Amino acid sequence: MRVSKLFTKTLKNVPADEVSKNAQLLIRAGFVYKEMAGVYAYLPLGLRVLENIKQIVREEMNAIDSNELIMTTLQRREVWEKTTRWSDEVVDVWFKTRLKDDTELGLGWSHEEPIVEMLKNYLHSYKDLPVSLYQFQTKMRNELRAKSGIMRGREFVMKDMYSLHDSKEALDAYYEKTIEAYKRVYDRLGIGDDTYVTFASGGAFTKFSHEFQTICDAGEDVIYLHRGKNIAVNEEVIDEAVAELGISRDELEPVKTAEVGNIFNFGSQKTDEMGLYYTAQDGSQKSLYIGSYGIGITRVMGVIAEKLSDDKGLVWPEAVAPYNVYLVSIGDVVAQADDLYKKLQEAGITVLFDDRNERPGAKFADAELIGLPYRVTISERLLAEGKLEFTVRKTGETELLTLEDLIARIGE
Amino acid sequence: MRVSKLFTKTLKNVPADEVSKNAQLLIRAGFVYKEMAGVYAYLPLGLRVLENIKQIVREEMNAIDSNELIMTTLQRREVWEKTTRWSDEVVDVWFKTRLKDDTELGLGWSHEEPIVEMLKNYLHSYKDLPVSLYQFQTKMRNELRAKSGIMRGREFVMKDMYSLHDSKEALDAYYEKTIEAYKRVYDRLGIGDDTYVTFASGGAFTKFSHEFQTICDAGEDVIYLHRGKNIAVNEEVIDEAVAELGISRDELEPVKTAEVGNIFNFGSQKTDEMGLYYTAQDGSQKSLYIGSYGIGITRVMGVIAEKLSDDKGLVWPEAVAPYNVYLVSIGDVVAQADDLYKKLQEAGITVLFDDRNERPGAKFADAELIGLPYRVTISERLLAEGKLEFTVRKTGETELLTLEDLIARIGE
Repeated sequence: MRVSKLFTKTLKNVPADEVSKNAQLLIRAGFVYKEMAGVYAYLPLGLRVLENIKQIVREEMNAIDSNELIMTTLQRREVWEKTTRWSDEVVDVWFKTRLKDDTELGLGWSHEEPIVEMLKNYLHSYKDLPVSLYQFQTKMRNELRAKSGIMRGREFVMKDMYSLHDSKEALDAYYEKTIEAYKRVYDRLGIGDDTYVTFASGGAFTKFSHEFQTICDAGEDVIYLHRGKNIAVNEEVIDEAVAELGISRDELEPVKTAEVGNIFNFGSQKTDEMGLYYTAQDGSQKSLYIGSYGIGITRVMGVIAEKLSDDKGLVWPEAVAPYNVYLVSIGDVVAQADDLYKKLQEAGITVLFDDRNERPGAKFADAELIGLPYRVTISERLLAEGKLEFTVRKTGETELLTLEDLIARIGE
Repeated sequence: MRVSKLFTKTLKNVPADEVSKNAQLLIRAGFVYKEMAGVYAYLPLGLRVLENIKQIVREEMNAIDSNELIMTTLQRREVWEKTTRWSDEVVDVWFKTRLKDDTELGLGWSHEEPIVEMLKNYLHSYKDLPVSLYQFQTKMRNELRAKSGIMRGREFVMKDMYSLHDSKEALDAYYEKTIEAYKRVYDRLGIGDDTYVTFASGGAFTKFSHEFQTICDAGEDVIYLHRGKNIAVNEEVIDEAVAELGISRDELEPVKTAEVGNIFNFGSQKTDEMGLYYTAQDGSQKSLYIGSYGIGITRVMGVIAEKLSDDKGLVWPEAVAPYNVYLVSIGDVVAQADDLYKKLQEAGITVLFDDRNERPGAKFADAELIGLPYRVTISERLLAEGKLEFTVRKTGETELLTLEDLIARIGE
């Protein structure tokens, strides 16, 4: 993509009410636009990051045989009244609206109920099990406050997955498989080393649920970390976890974190309430076991922006960066820069080509703010030497390389 | 994908209130699930069709230098009050909702206003022009009735594109370029031959706008077609169009159609109302010229389902089909069928492999209902001959082919 054909620009100013570092950076760099508190549009660069994150999650969910689908935002009252969750007293984040005939509708803030209802069409017998399905949904949550940028949205993208099984053992096995899939996701996203599987409150069916918590100063959570054992626990379950895991409370260190995923065992309550059962091999009607598994896609993007940035701007890991290379042309090298742009793309490298007629300093500052992994500079002086300038955004390291060596370096 | 790992099944029954042929077929074949009238979830097969359609549209919009982004569903009153379109009297399809502090919000039914508002951050000078941007948005429209399946949704996916220019001539040129891009889209979607650029009412800025109308018995529109000249006009502009085009009214044949796209020239009114101008080369502040270009993504899917189906089920064109091949294994050929499944995929062919332990008749009926372009059958009898059975869904033609010939045929 040529910068001259991208309608966004880097900005000097952000909205006065924007207090979060992630949104400030993302707005300045032209990745997002703030529609209102907790509601952000994703501009071309931001949308590419989102899609990269989704694709990594998609590949890992497909690898554990989950089926992608997309449920609806508009929600029927009758479906949610089968559990207690239509009530605004029980669920305090509903947005509600009305059809012309005054029928009240909700905007989906979660999708367990409609998914269980939908599955009544397809899930009848033990032969149909297990079932696992997921979606990337734009959830609507009527949060009282939304001051954490894209880390806490009123409108945000979530991957929610649900699995249904014929026994507790089958659910437990899939649950463990999902933990491993989630670890691969966070590794691929570049935040694996700072993301901990964290013991959290389990509810009625299991002693613990699990959160994936990433160390992040802007996070809203605190976890208690056992660095030696690579274990973390939430404050709410600290006593049970200490007992269960055979560790001492003194060894636990409180750390600020952001929750980037959570998984829990629903047991049979929801399917029982909603009347979804299956026929076992012996002909009897039996209860299902459900697991529910979330990843906040836009929140993960916010955490990466917040955590990996520096005082010059964003620093994207390669797997999620909107482009691999920020190509800067200096001076009168139009034909050579066009040729380089073409050759890099032919080598399978995605490029944001700053072809504007701007000062080098302005281009370098934008390159740093936008934070692509590599900057490649071409100029008359460099061409005379047969070299290109290659700069790693994360470390600032700069080298002069031939095109061939440069392509090899990026491919490493 | 193995049918045994797909949670959906073909269904015998559809909801009693579902009167449209497209939704009846799509529900029976497991592509969509009806949440309520005009609101459908897209199940794995349906989601793949949607994504295929979006990808074709995306490629053609990118080819005319448009930037993809994604705006928000939640809409601010202040933005829409700058034009007259917040009012429920002016726009009768708003869904409205409220924040906790009682601030009224709307659900996006269109996005001209927020896009113009957003562009105030980026568009200042003649140097920034032209700008073209588009999104695939889930629009919410509070339709009084919704009885046309996915052809008229209360929640539906639309590609909306907007272009901004510094002169009427520049807008006209881009408008013509977009007409050509749209023609390529409908050709690639397999409905090009029955889709007509149709003269429609132009509003305040131009004599005509243009609709893309596809011949379809279930369509809600009627166009007047001049088959000789390949021209169509809407009834509302028939007199002007006849005069302009130098044709006789008698030569026009009324045909039932569905509108699959529409493009119009907005002139400068909206940007003027909202206070978006640009600085010209001479330093003066000038008005912009906007074009607006829509394609109803879910509607197009409905039209294809409606129009290309037959009495046995759906018939997907190759470019939008969820998979190329429906692979049927008959009898005890598990290892050979697994191998064939692998080889077809290695040849770049997407396959839905019916690996269920079902009667051949049930598998064939599902293959026809689901409507993938090709069915490939493997059985002991066929293996003995060194052949596979190859059936074209659209024509019913069946041949016995070697694997090599079969792969070549699909690649044609």
